[in-house]
Amino acid sequence: MINWNNMDTLASMQEISKAEPVNLAQVMAGESGAERVKKYSVPMAEGMAYNYGAKQVDDKVLAGLAKLAEEAQLVDKFEALYNGAVINTGEKRLVLHHLTRGQLGEAVVADGVNKRDFYTGVQEKIAEFAGKVHSGQIANGAGEKFTTVVQIGIGGSDLGPRAIYLALEHWAKRHDTFKMEAKFISNVDPDDAAAVLSSIDLAHSLFILVSKSGTTLETLTNESFVKEALTKAGLDPSKHMVAVTSETSPLAKSDDYLAAFFMDDYIGGRYSSSSAVGGAVLSLAFGPEVFAQFLEGAAKEDELSKNKDIFKNPAMLDALIGVYERNVLGYLCTAVLPYSQALSRFPAHLQQLDMESNGKSVNRFGEPIHYQTGPVIFGEPGTNGQHSFYQLLHQGTSIVPLQFIGFKDSQIGTDVVIQDSTSQQKLCANVAAQIVAFACGKSDENRNKNFEGGRPSSIIIGDQLNPRTLGALLSHFENKVMFQGFVWNVNSFDQEGVQLGKVLAKKVLAHETDGALKVYSDLLNI
Amino acid sequence: MINWNNMDTLASMQEISKAEPVNLAQVMAGESGAERVKKYSVPMAEGMAYNYGAKQVDDKVLAGLAKLAEEAQLVDKFEALYNGAVINTGEKRLVLHHLTRGQLGEAVVADGVNKRDFYTGVQEKIAEFAGKVHSGQIANGAGEKFTTVVQIGIGGSDLGPRAIYLALEHWAKRHDTFKMEAKFISNVDPDDAAAVLSSIDLAHSLFILVSKSGTTLETLTNESFVKEALTKAGLDPSKHMVAVTSETSPLAKSDDYLAAFFMDDYIGGRYSSSSAVGGAVLSLAFGPEVFAQFLEGAAKEDELSKNKDIFKNPAMLDALIGVYERNVLGYLCTAVLPYSQALSRFPAHLQQLDMESNGKSVNRFGEPIHYQTGPVIFGEPGTNGQHSFYQLLHQGTSIVPLQFIGFKDSQIGTDVVIQDSTSQQKLCANVAAQIVAFACGKSDENRNKNFEGGRPSSIIIGDQLNPRTLGALLSHFENKVMFQGFVWNVNSFDQEGVQLGKVLAKKVLAHETDGALKVYSDLLNI
Repeated sequence: MINWNNMDTLASMQEISKAEPVNLAQVMAGESGAERVKKYSVPMAEGMAYNYGAKQVDDKVLAGLAKLAEEAQLVDKFEALYNGAVINTGEKRLVLHHLTRGQLGEAVVADGVNKRDFYTGVQEKIAEFAGKVHSGQIANGAGEKFTTVVQIGIGGSDLGPRAIYLALEHWAKRHDTFKMEAKFISNVDPDDAAAVLSSIDLAHSLFILVSKSGTTLETLTNESFVKEALTKAGLDPSKHMVAVTSETSPLAKSDDYLAAFFMDDYIGGRYSSSSAVGGAVLSLAFGPEVFAQFLEGAAKEDELSKNKDIFKNPAMLDALIGVYERNVLGYLCTAVLPYSQALSRFPAHLQQLDMESNGKSVNRFGEPIHYQTGPVIFGEPGTNGQHSFYQLLHQGTSIVPLQFIGFKDSQIGTDVVIQDSTSQQKLCANVAAQIVAFACGKSDENRNKNFEGGRPSSIIIGDQLNPRTLGALLSHFENKVMFQGFVWNVNSFDQEGVQLGKVLAKKVLAHETDGALKVYSDLLNI
Repeated sequence: MINWNNMDTLASMQEISKAEPVNLAQVMAGESGAERVKKYSVPMAEGMAYNYGAKQVDDKVLAGLAKLAEEAQLVDKFEALYNGAVINTGEKRLVLHHLTRGQLGEAVVADGVNKRDFYTGVQEKIAEFAGKVHSGQIANGAGEKFTTVVQIGIGGSDLGPRAIYLALEHWAKRHDTFKMEAKFISNVDPDDAAAVLSSIDLAHSLFILVSKSGTTLETLTNESFVKEALTKAGLDPSKHMVAVTSETSPLAKSDDYLAAFFMDDYIGGRYSSSSAVGGAVLSLAFGPEVFAQFLEGAAKEDELSKNKDIFKNPAMLDALIGVYERNVLGYLCTAVLPYSQALSRFPAHLQQLDMESNGKSVNRFGEPIHYQTGPVIFGEPGTNGQHSFYQLLHQGTSIVPLQFIGFKDSQIGTDVVIQDSTSQQKLCANVAAQIVAFACGKSDENRNKNFEGGRPSSIIIGDQLNPRTLGALLSHFENKVMFQGFVWNVNSFDQEGVQLGKVLAKKVLAHETDGALKVYSDLLNI
């Protein structure tokens, strides 16, 4: 029996709030600090580990978080989710993105089909199509191979697939699985589409239109933009386009597309990287085998999220520590700092994943809640961030918890030795140094050079960023956000907050405005 | 006589804190809202305007902010700065980035030279060099023209020039002033340099090494990386490299470079976009005339920052409203949301500019202060952000003030009409709609679809993003950050917070670690 209770009704939460705060600088000093870092580590899939040695927790706080996990029935709720309960209460939908990468529990039947079969069926269809594109069996009007694939989508249809493409582009090149360059058009700003179109060879480009409903205005506008360019170039748009859409959308059976790959209502945009939304573009860019490895990494990490023991469930532990930071310690932001240039857009994807899922002020029943929910997420790759906003993180007046990610090996493998170390060693040395600098600080009589420390961070460490570890990383953060949503008792799977702006924008375009909205419209010459 | 007092000693600040908070949803409704948006606007240079109609201020708060500006002597302090006072107290340096674009006050002599002459001299030298590169008078070893320029730098030597390059790339292409493609290598992650090098034609690439001291480890490492690649390709590195450095650095007179363009100690990295740091790469990419236009736009906006009247000084007004939001209303973050795909990396530059400048806990004399200083800055271009993190901005439990930027016209000029409007009109309609949605909200009996409103924003509106308006934009934000630093009485021009990490990273690389640092080093295989 699952109870969906608000966080402030949970006895364990009140107990945790009373715990003595941990003095991080103190506990991280000396040999006790070393022991702590060794002990406070949880294995993840694909040889990775989640290390929370530098978080403001101790055994007492952790015991409290374990009780919270139990009282909030986090793993039971996850079980209900993957077994097909209507977890998205606002839209009355199942939440099935985990099924794209594995069968975690019972068979889930919806719309009269086994949903795991549906997702694997779509994957097979994409794989077959990609194979034909790569072999040249599916080619342009002149019978020539496509060399570029362009995704047209926005939000979840853009940020996740784009981040994953950038994360694996150079890995794929090194491992000879790179098939086609990928580009992305998302913004309704006409300069976005125009710039992308000017950078590609139209005649050899295949476009993927991603829209579940087939009605997203930005995406349809960009599709028209692309079609006009194709037509002007003397090309037949229907020979250059595929659709990723729902079976019931107007695009599904249209002759305007070479093929349609289906998505459904049970996977929200920000969770759709492992569905056809990510699958089509990534299978075309890197080959379906690479996408399959990505899914396998995610599936293995998903399995760990079933563990009731918080020390065997890294996503749940990460989630609980985040709740402690947000609701007990009162921190608003979290910075995501990957020490990997290939993860340059991963923070932007996590920003959407987290802020769109848990940036809510009502519980899953639509009742107001009286505690803080989702944090503000931002981040850039280290070491770049070190020479930028880290100043505030070290010496600013507010504490920002940090989520580091680091890998022992680089992707491309080209390196140089300067001052007795490789660039990769310098990169790793920097992230190790930063964790300790943030946690321990350093006293200086010159207060300007004084570091108070006490600034918490965690790090996920892996051997190398590749399709499998990336899949596991994505699953970790998706499940972390899900567990936090369970604790806060919010619906992490709808996004009503984006609607009002859409409604008002339509009014502006129809010139049905008054008051302030009319003045802004006039100022912007609409 | 200038008094450098802490903010909490100012009588005006205490008065402002007592003002009744403005009910934004109320004042922005109906015709009074329309009047407000018309009235609350301050002209900027180059035909732009700063509109603060949707900020949580009224005439009473504004009167208080005007008193604060006077009591904190903001314009006097700016005057002292551009007349050559030692404003950077920590490092005992002048702060002269405004002199790169104009002479705002008295002649400033330092190191025995007139500094305005020094900066214009460097600009002329760069212009001459760029002209020779464009004409082919300076060419590669085979006598062929360079086609690509690659900036090697990190932090301020990277983020600002990169954001500006992206902002003007398509404008320059449309206006036939595009000369060379630019690329950027910054991260010490070897995959960064390797990826850039694999994407260019080495034989026709010119590299700019940017390091003031000539000792920045990341940058020197990446230089070696590049030199090794050039040598391996049978090319002579000294024929492919220029340096931007200080006159006293080891790089200044080295035969390893085709030329050296000088910077000095009076312009910090994050303020260096208008110095040789931005000048070299941008003059090479777009021609020196385009860079000169950018400087002229900035110079005009700088002039406005001399006005004592807050309603004629948009940067100062923006700064004061930001202080009100941070210290009276208690908001931690500010989101920068340009409705312009070309400004995709402008938020990342402002993130450094703001957070590195004002993320401080001691005043300019090194004494602890007891109020909040610099905010956390993040942002992505709209409309992309709308489909991502705006959910939290609209319905999350914390209020995040917003800084919108919008332009009436697109840069490239290619557009498409769908449902009776162009993409550009849709883009502008969206930003207008968002401002009103955030401010006014909308009641709904279904609490899940309820928008409380009361979420403040401002917008900078211009005709088009071009070199002049971009220069004005940059100046606006630089001066905003400066004025806020004056209110908070912090030194906005040093960055001691980045030092400890550097020291510890060196220890890791020298294997001189113990405790937690040793464990992290082991975990990362260093």
